[in-house]
Amino acid sequence: MQDYQTILEEIYQSLKNCENTGQVASYIPELANADKNKLGLHLQLITGENFGVGNSSEKFSIQSISKVFSLALAFQHIGNDLLERVDVEPSGNPFNHLSLLEQEDGIPRNPLINSGAIVVADVLLSNLQNPKQDFLEFVRELAHDDTIEFNEKIAESERKTGFNNYAAANLLKAYGNLNNKVEDVLDFYFHQCSIMMDCKQLTDAFFVFANKGCCRKNKQHLTDSQVKRVNAIMLTCGFYDEAGEFAFEVGLPGKSGVGGGIVALLPNEFIIATWAPALNPKGNSYLGMQALEQFTTKTKLSIF
Amino acid sequence: MQDYQTILEEIYQSLKNCENTGQVASYIPELANADKNKLGLHLQLITGENFGVGNSSEKFSIQSISKVFSLALAFQHIGNDLLERVDVEPSGNPFNHLSLLEQEDGIPRNPLINSGAIVVADVLLSNLQNPKQDFLEFVRELAHDDTIEFNEKIAESERKTGFNNYAAANLLKAYGNLNNKVEDVLDFYFHQCSIMMDCKQLTDAFFVFANKGCCRKNKQHLTDSQVKRVNAIMLTCGFYDEAGEFAFEVGLPGKSGVGGGIVALLPNEFIIATWAPALNPKGNSYLGMQALEQFTTKTKLSIF
Amino acid sequence: MQDYQTILEEIYQSLKNCENTGQVASYIPELANADKNKLGLHLQLITGENFGVGNSSEKFSIQSISKVFSLALAFQHIGNDLLERVDVEPSGNPFNHLSLLEQEDGIPRNPLINSGAIVVADVLLSNLQNPKQDFLEFVRELAHDDTIEFNEKIAESERKTGFNNYAAANLLKAYGNLNNKVEDVLDFYFHQCSIMMDCKQLTDAFFVFANKGCCRKNKQHLTDSQVKRVNAIMLTCGFYDEAGEFAFEVGLPGKSGVGGGIVALLPNEFIIATWAPALNPKGNSYLGMQALEQFTTKTKLSIF
Amino acid sequence: MQDYQTILEEIYQSLKNCENTGQVASYIPELANADKNKLGLHLQLITGENFGVGNSSEKFSIQSISKVFSLALAFQHIGNDLLERVDVEPSGNPFNHLSLLEQEDGIPRNPLINSGAIVVADVLLSNLQNPKQDFLEFVRELAHDDTIEFNEKIAESERKTGFNNYAAANLLKAYGNLNNKVEDVLDFYFHQCSIMMDCKQLTDAFFVFANKGCCRKNKQHLTDSQVKRVNAIMLTCGFYDEAGEFAFEVGLPGKSGVGGGIVALLPNEFIIATWAPALNPKGNSYLGMQALEQFTTKTKLSIF
Repeated sequence: MQDYQTILEEIYQSLKNCENTGQVASYIPELANADKNKLGLHLQLITGENFGVGNSSEKFSIQSISKVFSLALAFQHIGNDLLERVDVEPSGNPFNHLSLLEQEDGIPRNPLINSGAIVVADVLLSNLQNPKQDFLEFVRELAHDDTIEFNEKIAESERKTGFNNYAAANLLKAYGNLNNKVEDVLDFYFHQCSIMMDCKQLTDAFFVFANKGCCRKNKQHLTDSQVKRVNAIMLTCGFYDEAGEFAFEVGLPGKSGVGGGIVALLPNEFIIATWAPALNPKGNSYLGMQALEQFTTKTKLSIF
Repeated sequence: MQDYQTILEEIYQSLKNCENTGQVASYIPELANADKNKLGLHLQLITGENFGVGNSSEKFSIQSISKVFSLALAFQHIGNDLLERVDVEPSGNPFNHLSLLEQEDGIPRNPLINSGAIVVADVLLSNLQNPKQDFLEFVRELAHDDTIEFNEKIAESERKTGFNNYAAANLLKAYGNLNNKVEDVLDFYFHQCSIMMDCKQLTDAFFVFANKGCCRKNKQHLTDSQVKRVNAIMLTCGFYDEAGEFAFEVGLPGKSGVGGGIVALLPNEFIIATWAPALNPKGNSYLGMQALEQFTTKTKLSIF
Repeated sequence: MQDYQTILEEIYQSLKNCENTGQVASYIPELANADKNKLGLHLQLITGENFGVGNSSEKFSIQSISKVFSLALAFQHIGNDLLERVDVEPSGNPFNHLSLLEQEDGIPRNPLINSGAIVVADVLLSNLQNPKQDFLEFVRELAHDDTIEFNEKIAESERKTGFNNYAAANLLKAYGNLNNKVEDVLDFYFHQCSIMMDCKQLTDAFFVFANKGCCRKNKQHLTDSQVKRVNAIMLTCGFYDEAGEFAFEVGLPGKSGVGGGIVALLPNEFIIATWAPALNPKGNSYLGMQALEQFTTKTKLSIF
Repeated sequence: MQDYQTILEEIYQSLKNCENTGQVASYIPELANADKNKLGLHLQLITGENFGVGNSSEKFSIQSISKVFSLALAFQHIGNDLLERVDVEPSGNPFNHLSLLEQEDGIPRNPLINSGAIVVADVLLSNLQNPKQDFLEFVRELAHDDTIEFNEKIAESERKTGFNNYAAANLLKAYGNLNNKVEDVLDFYFHQCSIMMDCKQLTDAFFVFANKGCCRKNKQHLTDSQVKRVNAIMLTCGFYDEAGEFAFEVGLPGKSGVGGGIVALLPNEFIIATWAPALNPKGNSYLGMQALEQFTTKTKLSIF
């Protein structure tokens, strides 16, 4: 048994002392205020043990990490029918590029790029009774935590400035791959991205993906096969055009968000979440990427 | 002096008898009702003589032909400053592709593709007092015809279904190349495209581009240099990804619209307009392209 | 302990009876003669147990599977310096496309697409004393089998018709990312691809990637970290533009070749190889992909 | 009648005094030695009058200007059949990009980009008895000048370093759009590009394109229609991804070469050639582009 608390602390110290050349995301005004000196790590073992350092219990906007929840919920509702509207291949392109969407006739490359997540949001809008509330309840249930909330200010901030997402949604609509109204789909999407969670809560909620579909209270939310597929998509597509780099350096399925969060997991072993708001040029947390790289190097734990 | 009336009638007869494999544009519901058997041609010499055959005095929606008017009006207002926001290179891509826009950081390739025309519309919105009315007056003045009107039904039809244009406008906005609100710019744009004119009126209005900037009543609307540049843009960019083909087969500056209209001109000599609603796969009038090809072949008149 | 022999036989029977819509690769004339009814599977456990069905001991040209050997040997020689000349991101494009190479200034996306493997071949040419022979010895040593040979006829066949590879190599040369002569690099590359092995031998040779860098005779050929990285690259890039699909459906690091072979592995558990010459439209073995999908579904063994 | 000699001298003086930020082409070693201070202009009227300034009678390597001669000769031999192997659309991409070639299944966008000119060279190789000699004779005949020669040193220099052209030719071969051997086609192509001519000779040879297909000795080399088409291709495709800019600023069909030469013409009026070795970032002569822009601005002569 490794001394995980010491390992997390070593990582924390080494990163607090290194120069942080990342930049806080500025395209969503409400995110631009984040303090780039914040750094939190939280590790949860499949056995239920927990280890945290730094700002690991401070809430932040999970942003694209929410795409994993919406993907899981869509799988739960329509299963592999989802694959008729969104592919599962890595994009090899920055997260906001519409070019591929045009070349591929309105079928997004995968559910973790923005256009793909917007299609997933459209699926949920068509399949949930009270879409926003039902989605929030799903996340709360996975995490066993009813205090998880949307951040209306951030959702509103994105609604006013998310022109790229409006472009993507309209293009999907032009290709007939959006059944609901652009405004409605994006209202849902901006809300899902605005959810506030801390590192500990993220490991709670992602427990299900490390535990064959069963949450911490042992309820089966997803089938074994669905979990395997969500993990595969995270590994190949979870970090935009840095997915290969993350697999290469870290070697875990995971997902990042522009709020500075990253969650990753080793099936049957652990879930780890980090938060550090400054991003590298590819849009992933600058310190978070390094934290996870150090963690798998020190522990020699990875899927490979 | 050639016998133009006979030439037009020969072209008309040969095309009425040929199989028309084109398809009427269906993505704008209001245009889908057009009768694909309609065919009109009108020729106006710089000397003021007029020749017409077929449905040359039936009005249709000029659609993208309006981009030439908006480009000319934008040049009139801000001159070459326009070039900081839109380039003048052929796109080598279908008319609605957003890929290039992303690769080129939000600067449209030229003012005659949709994204470029939307930037031009934004310029006019910022520079005209009563944008829609002022634009309409400009077209009326060029044509010396106050009966020219918007078609509100077509404008409304595009407002409801023009998702591709919403995508383009939002993408421009994301790149900071749109100063007004997306809704306002597109309202203007959809109105400019909805203008109804017949072949004769189009030759009246395009007289200015064949006559060094002076309209039929001899008023100087554009400088010699501006007209030269508008003509150059028409030649290299006026027919989407069929621009080279048109230069090769016809050899005149011109512009087509999905309503089935085409206008072309030989500086100091003539203006010719055709209308036939069915389009070839590249989005240009199937019979219109052939009519103009026959015309320059028979008359041996082209810029080359 | 699962009954692997029965599982393999079930898979074999189900696939022998299904319609085989794949096509044998025809662009290399020497490969076009392959019998599309052949099907072999071989499984080797990390404990040394072996299970085989069908044509599992018939030799075929390993083609792109050889890229994993050359990548490993290049890592052994120059370590992470390799990453200055080739990236590790999935390409999201068919295996022979040069477009990305131009967009990315001559740095191939990853070492498993042709252009990337040609750069790796160039590295080996610069670092090995007797390049072709040394490479062959490396493969023999990994497999502990001195009967493994190049197929000179296939190598010659590719030399005469591999225009796409000549294009890639010349483009790399134009970008300054090829130090040796085009002819020499491709001579090496065509030989590495021509190596003949059967399914059993492939599992022998890939044992090292499932066993932290130690071969079956327990010699350490690669570091733990190098093996992890080779596996990560296989998972994200091993199946051209079907890499995501393979991760999603199968969930193992692996590599395919146009000769119809596929090898995949679960670290610390097993190595599995299949051979069936007919390819699906993405260039991967039609039956082989299904065999591996059935195997991980039946055994519930995957990295996720 | 304008005072052309004075106009040319004014242009010459203004450009000799302006800062020359262009760069001599360095990728062909033999061209890198050119003196970037050289500047020549020559104007020939359709009436036979000639006007020259600066280094207008100094020979230089015509490079891509030769593509117009090969296009004309291919039209003469196989007419519009040529269009089955090469398109006539502007590329909207830098001159050496292979991306389009892949996207468009081996059919080059037009005959004036490198890949297109290589297909034209292949056509000539198949249709001429003594390809290199016959081509040289064709150019000599157009110019009425038997002193015109290949520059073997430059041809050899390109043969050794023209990896991009080898890449293009091999890619064309892979798509089945090259009938002769890569080496043979490129030997022809490098020779055609190496031809040495001065500005005066270029206006002699291009006389045919300004005179409906008749050369200065009034022999009909091309049909009226063929000349019109060559001119159309020059206008839309003659300046790589600066073709629109040239049409916009200059307004004449023309062709540039990386040797620093440019030829342009106004049908039935004049031919003008410039030479200044330093190139702008798009690969066209920095001073030459300005010289022609000044010329059409001062004389108000253009096709528009």
